[in-house]
Amino acid sequence: MPKTPTVYDVARHVGMSTATVSRVLRRPEDVRPETRALVHAAIQELGYVPSGAARGLAARQTGVLGLCFPDVDGIDDPASVPAPVPAGQAVEVVVDTGQAPDVHPGNLYMGEVMRGAELEAWRTGLAVMIAVARGPASAATVSDLAGRVDGLAVLSATVPDDVLAHIARRIPVVVMAGPGIDGDPHDHISVDNAAGMRALTTHLVADHGLRDLAFVGGSADSPDDAERFLGFRAALAEAGLPVPDAPAARGDFTRTTARTLARRLLAAGDLPRALVCSNDQTALGFLDELAAAGVDVPGRVALTGFDGIDAGLTASPPLTTVRQPMVELGRAAVDRLRRRMADPSLPTATMNLPVRVLLRRSCGCAPTARATPGPAAAVAPPAG
Amino acid sequence: MPKTPTVYDVARHVGMSTATVSRVLRRPEDVRPETRALVHAAIQELGYVPSGAARGLAARQTGVLGLCFPDVDGIDDPASVPAPVPAGQAVEVVVDTGQAPDVHPGNLYMGEVMRGAELEAWRTGLAVMIAVARGPASAATVSDLAGRVDGLAVLSATVPDDVLAHIARRIPVVVMAGPGIDGDPHDHISVDNAAGMRALTTHLVADHGLRDLAFVGGSADSPDDAERFLGFRAALAEAGLPVPDAPAARGDFTRTTARTLARRLLAAGDLPRALVCSNDQTALGFLDELAAAGVDVPGRVALTGFDGIDAGLTASPPLTTVRQPMVELGRAAVDRLRRRMADPSLPTATMNLPVRVLLRRSCGCAPTARATPGPAAAVAPPAG
Repeated sequence: MPKTPTVYDVARHVGMSTATVSRVLRRPEDVRPETRALVHAAIQELGYVPSGAARGLAARQTGVLGLCFPDVDGIDDPASVPAPVPAGQAVEVVVDTGQAPDVHPGNLYMGEVMRGAELEAWRTGLAVMIAVARGPASAATVSDLAGRVDGLAVLSATVPDDVLAHIARRIPVVVMAGPGIDGDPHDHISVDNAAGMRALTTHLVADHGLRDLAFVGGSADSPDDAERFLGFRAALAEAGLPVPDAPAARGDFTRTTARTLARRLLAAGDLPRALVCSNDQTALGFLDELAAAGVDVPGRVALTGFDGIDAGLTASPPLTTVRQPMVELGRAAVDRLRRRMADPSLPTATMNLPVRVLLRRSCGCAPTARATPGPAAAVAPPAG
Repeated sequence: MPKTPTVYDVARHVGMSTATVSRVLRRPEDVRPETRALVHAAIQELGYVPSGAARGLAARQTGVLGLCFPDVDGIDDPASVPAPVPAGQAVEVVVDTGQAPDVHPGNLYMGEVMRGAELEAWRTGLAVMIAVARGPASAATVSDLAGRVDGLAVLSATVPDDVLAHIARRIPVVVMAGPGIDGDPHDHISVDNAAGMRALTTHLVADHGLRDLAFVGGSADSPDDAERFLGFRAALAEAGLPVPDAPAARGDFTRTTARTLARRLLAAGDLPRALVCSNDQTALGFLDELAAAGVDVPGRVALTGFDGIDAGLTASPPLTTVRQPMVELGRAAVDRLRRRMADPSLPTATMNLPVRVLLRRSCGCAPTARATPGPAAAVAPPAG
């Protein structure tokens, strides 16, 4: 192999300073497009590959942001994961009863947050490193990640408080999602769960005239769930309706458990006029059982979710829901990291991102069916 | 701020060598759990954060793998991306006609591949860095990523051949998905598109007795589409049925275009007995229009897709499809990178991962509906 070209070779080749070449690599948005093009052409021609490690030491920063997520797939022991599937096996043909979705909603959520973070990092000339905090060695995984990056965005409740505090002594940390905490030691970007559920519930009461609404909660230890229930209660109180102290039923955010709850409700024979579910999976589990029992949704029971997963869109009827701004969450976290990196003296802030209530047929609204696409003008107003 | 602790401080604190401490950080699976626990406790106590940059130079490797994806979201100019949404805006309530899914299927695909790569990297003690190759400066993005990692897995057709060849001179490169090429210069992990579509088509012919099948293609320049059409043709030839030279219709893999194709087909009034679509989105677009026109699926027309997206699972009827092994693709790519890093003299290989045909109701199979969950025994055999 020939001598490895250096940044000096590239600079000499284009007749520019090494500082300019470095700037093209590190902050391309600060460089004129023509200069960028020249430098990249020289990089290609010479076969120069910048060394991230050497650059990191020289600049005292890496140009990399870290993203850390929890292990929603529940895998926490490397030894429990089989080796990758060998290639060249035969096609398998199986009858699929559709008990489980292909993609865990938690993974989907994280994929979207990751995409937003990547987009914002790319927009501002930064690279992204990811890690999933799994099992007993998760603190080591996170510390390792923190040691390689200039700032860390971490999903709420992924990393123990003391580990995060330790990391935050050295690099900026932003916590994504989860509840706001009084005196939160880190910047915190969250989603307005309460306002979203409140707006959705108000829609059911004010636009559809419903007065007998039941809340189906998720896991009791979920702050998201608690905030959504608060929003539900606030809307009822505002409308002068009775405000329950606790959810009418409580599942665990999964479709399977929701089906069990739904069968129990159907057996009891005491259906409310609206079921307001704490997430989409729960609502879809109810929809499965209500459809099987011949209960008309939304005619007999209006049904709503929260999250905005695609499965709600293709459900029959499509599910009214509150969409989480997942991509925006990732973008806002990176934006905040950049601001703090630029000005470490910024006061710690907690920010709530706005959500969107998406009205579809399951609440009694009658947007033109997907089957007959048309412009926005073809949308019918909510049925009263 | 007090003096930053070093690896020497940690080693002294636990009475072990710095090599042992390093091993805990870099190859935890090689260290006894008790040793790991002791070292992590010391790291916590002292507030030690390993410096990835310094470690990278010392070890001449970074312990990081790179993943590079194309910009399926079509964003290729940083200036075209608005700044992140400000926090604290009001909740928006909108009627949703469901024209577009929340999550672009391409992003979902990449999210799953990423998850597989992360899982395999974590299983083997490596970190993961990601990048999306966007716009005119994408070669620079990829080269920058390559300069920070020990190996690079890249989705097919993401990076120009010359850029990839340049990177492969320095670090191992694995190409994921896309067609096998004679004399492929890189390791290549792909998915058996042809075998999957062939098995699905054979199911329609052999198990459902269908003889009038039409193939609805995606983009004409897609190698995946070409391979799937080959599989369709092979199954027909095998069954002694007429083999078409070209797809009966061709869309662009989107649901919207598929709806237009479907309306055209319905207007022509010449429905085949089965529509074999090149991907799930195309099949779902046809399903939208067939349902709106009152055409019974699968009674009048059997309908199938390819990919295995969740929206096919909640469609009515659920969509028979071929599932792509997305997570396994990411895992296999990282596995191959590791093998090549361990033995650079390995001959270049192209591997096809097996796919799964998932039989649901849209082809005429009658698995017990999702609404009445039960064990596998509750599954009815395919209707003839």
